[in-house]
Amino acid sequence: MDNLLFTQELQTYLGERISREPAVRDQHGVGFSYHECQPPDAVVYPQTTEEIAEIVKICAKYGVPIIPFGAGTSIEGHVLALRGGVCIDLSLMNQIMEVNQADMYVTVQAGVTRNQLDGLLEGSGFFFPIGPGVNATLGGMASTRASGTNAVRYGTMKDNVISLTVVLPDGKIIKTASKAKKSSAGYDLTRLFVGAEGTLGVISELTLKLHSEPETIYAAVCPFPSVEAAVNTAIKTIQKGVPIAKIELLDDQMMRAINRYSSLDYQEVPTLFLEFGGTAAEVEAQILAVQQFAQEFGAEDFVWEKDEANRKKLWRARTDAAPAALALRPGSKLMSTDVCVPISRLAQCIVETQLDIQQTRILAPILGHVGDGNFHLTILIDPDDFESFERAKALNERLVRRALAMEGTCTGEHGVGVGKLAYMALEHEGALDVMRAIKQSIDPNNLMNPGKLLPAG
Amino acid sequence: MDNLLFTQELQTYLGERISREPAVRDQHGVGFSYHECQPPDAVVYPQTTEEIAEIVKICAKYGVPIIPFGAGTSIEGHVLALRGGVCIDLSLMNQIMEVNQADMYVTVQAGVTRNQLDGLLEGSGFFFPIGPGVNATLGGMASTRASGTNAVRYGTMKDNVISLTVVLPDGKIIKTASKAKKSSAGYDLTRLFVGAEGTLGVISELTLKLHSEPETIYAAVCPFPSVEAAVNTAIKTIQKGVPIAKIELLDDQMMRAINRYSSLDYQEVPTLFLEFGGTAAEVEAQILAVQQFAQEFGAEDFVWEKDEANRKKLWRARTDAAPAALALRPGSKLMSTDVCVPISRLAQCIVETQLDIQQTRILAPILGHVGDGNFHLTILIDPDDFESFERAKALNERLVRRALAMEGTCTGEHGVGVGKLAYMALEHEGALDVMRAIKQSIDPNNLMNPGKLLPAG
Repeated sequence: MDNLLFTQELQTYLGERISREPAVRDQHGVGFSYHECQPPDAVVYPQTTEEIAEIVKICAKYGVPIIPFGAGTSIEGHVLALRGGVCIDLSLMNQIMEVNQADMYVTVQAGVTRNQLDGLLEGSGFFFPIGPGVNATLGGMASTRASGTNAVRYGTMKDNVISLTVVLPDGKIIKTASKAKKSSAGYDLTRLFVGAEGTLGVISELTLKLHSEPETIYAAVCPFPSVEAAVNTAIKTIQKGVPIAKIELLDDQMMRAINRYSSLDYQEVPTLFLEFGGTAAEVEAQILAVQQFAQEFGAEDFVWEKDEANRKKLWRARTDAAPAALALRPGSKLMSTDVCVPISRLAQCIVETQLDIQQTRILAPILGHVGDGNFHLTILIDPDDFESFERAKALNERLVRRALAMEGTCTGEHGVGVGKLAYMALEHEGALDVMRAIKQSIDPNNLMNPGKLLPAG
Repeated sequence: MDNLLFTQELQTYLGERISREPAVRDQHGVGFSYHECQPPDAVVYPQTTEEIAEIVKICAKYGVPIIPFGAGTSIEGHVLALRGGVCIDLSLMNQIMEVNQADMYVTVQAGVTRNQLDGLLEGSGFFFPIGPGVNATLGGMASTRASGTNAVRYGTMKDNVISLTVVLPDGKIIKTASKAKKSSAGYDLTRLFVGAEGTLGVISELTLKLHSEPETIYAAVCPFPSVEAAVNTAIKTIQKGVPIAKIELLDDQMMRAINRYSSLDYQEVPTLFLEFGGTAAEVEAQILAVQQFAQEFGAEDFVWEKDEANRKKLWRARTDAAPAALALRPGSKLMSTDVCVPISRLAQCIVETQLDIQQTRILAPILGHVGDGNFHLTILIDPDDFESFERAKALNERLVRRALAMEGTCTGEHGVGVGKLAYMALEHEGALDVMRAIKQSIDPNNLMNPGKLLPAG
């Protein structure tokens, strides 16, 4: 970036839509995480795919790294400018380009946020199911293969992207697929760019699947005598094919946190938060089935919420779990773990981890997308206590190794960024070389979000 | 293959499990299609992933092409030995390695067939939903990204493979993913090898998702006054979120064919074959909803089948559509088209194609996986009439161009093989270069099923 010709060329092309202000750069050098800020040299604000392509061409010509940036909500250091370079902020690319109700898809620019899309779809009878806990952009969600509480029924971003427009590292623009619902026409480039964390190109537009809103939505809360009982209820629900919309586990610590934060008085024991969708008759049948499973595993209390306001209040408490956990010890930094294991191993994985947490003398409430086998520790770290940070990292490492030994993954939905780099070889072994070969073939000069996803070879 | 050292090395390693018999080679040089047989130089029969790896290493050492072979049921010439080489027949790799009911997956060797897996799962309460019209191997189905009649509810192979074991072109063995239900840990290698048609490596083992069998399954048949009416009923069914299990369109010609072939007396008009699954109450609600949509679009007759024997008879007629079509003119060869378009364009695409068929003076009954926008012409070709073959090819090309103009794809589920090579550039434009780069990076010597999927550069 010290190359004057480069700076001039970029400035000439972008006019006002480039910033080198330290405050702006600092904002763009860190996500929602404990990672240290590493600011880019400049931040640019394209408005179209073609502008991104031009920016990428200029960067490629001068060998300058490129970091795509959505809402800055990723939590594994995905946006850190490890080698400096240009941050492409996609916030001006916030146009919804087509809503096609007949074909049940929407095409958006990559900077459109989850909330913006929700707002647009409200009242249409359709919705987009993927919702991480924050107001991320859809480009960012695709790049990290995000999911959230609806994944148990609707899958993750990989299942809900029909096609992408991508700017490649040489500035060429491609579409990864047609708008057909399925295709066998060659390699699945859509799924290659979903989850690639900006290391293979910049996602500039997305065509996403819409789903019909269920006629009726009910929620329920069910406290359990143990984590095993709660998880076994979830396993049986999935096995019996109940098309449950959400099934979330909060452990005793997390229940304590949300009670305090949201002035609630739930029992402070392992608890499932559930959501059911369908016709009224379907939903009632689903609830009766799950209630019976819960009772089999020793649950005594099973509270349904039919009322929309109460249901939203209940899920608000769940959504606020991260700030609620943080409020247990104000001033803390948050480290979120993200392992995912086959569901039959989940109870054991959580119980062993709870024991580990106790022995480590760390505060780490747990919540889990239990229908998928995915759970998060929200580890609270004292930023002034280096040793607590080291203890948290060691706890996370033991957790990842535990999950991998159970045929699981180090990250169910947050992505690798820099935070999970250390586990990639352990998880993938020889397959990591295939990933490296792909990276090398598409981005031979390693300019696209360098240092993320793939550990140094 | 004229290299004596190579032949000796392979023979020494495999003993009896190698054949150079002309009849065996000929069997392995053609699938279920109109393509001319191109036999491999030898056929080998490994029993384990490690044996495949050893075979691949020997081939790689001598630069000999490798063609993976499942049941030989692909229809786009996927198994043609265009440059000679060794055909790896996976039929001895027919072990079911693990059935995990708690985690709802099964791990199989790649040569296990669809029917074999069905037989194993019978009575377990679980099933595997992907079923092409033939008894293909699961490795082959993954390689072509197959789907079939259940895709409207359960997705395609891409949605139902959890993890693959793959032998790479250098003989290394990798696993593409853990057994977790979801992961954000790096590039999605599973989805890269699904649909790669053996051009990036040999799939040797698969871990597949199981689904719970619905409590109740009903079927229905509904004749319509027009293709548009039938397709509009399908669109509304999907839009309203009815979780229909199957929704298949047969045109008047195809209804004539199945009436004759299966001694039935359905009306010879555009007809939907439907299947519904769930609890009895859910299924009845679904049927009432779809029946109402059908009536809105002018259907007068809507026959449910609750009885299992009758239901199976009905679907047997649908499954026999290809032989039924062939029986309209015995001795014909079959060319199957496979376009898939956004569902809102489907009626127009079919109607224009029917007109084209009439004008081309060709016999080509139509059936469609209408919930996905995918339909097939079963074009009957007189093998002694070269000109009828040329007319069929031209018809298919016009159909593909029509589908691409509607933002569709040239192949919804059959794959590219050699039969769709000519349309890859038209469909993918610049994205084809990304596919080529990936192929080059993983199989730099172009030994894995050469000449398939990617047109010459």
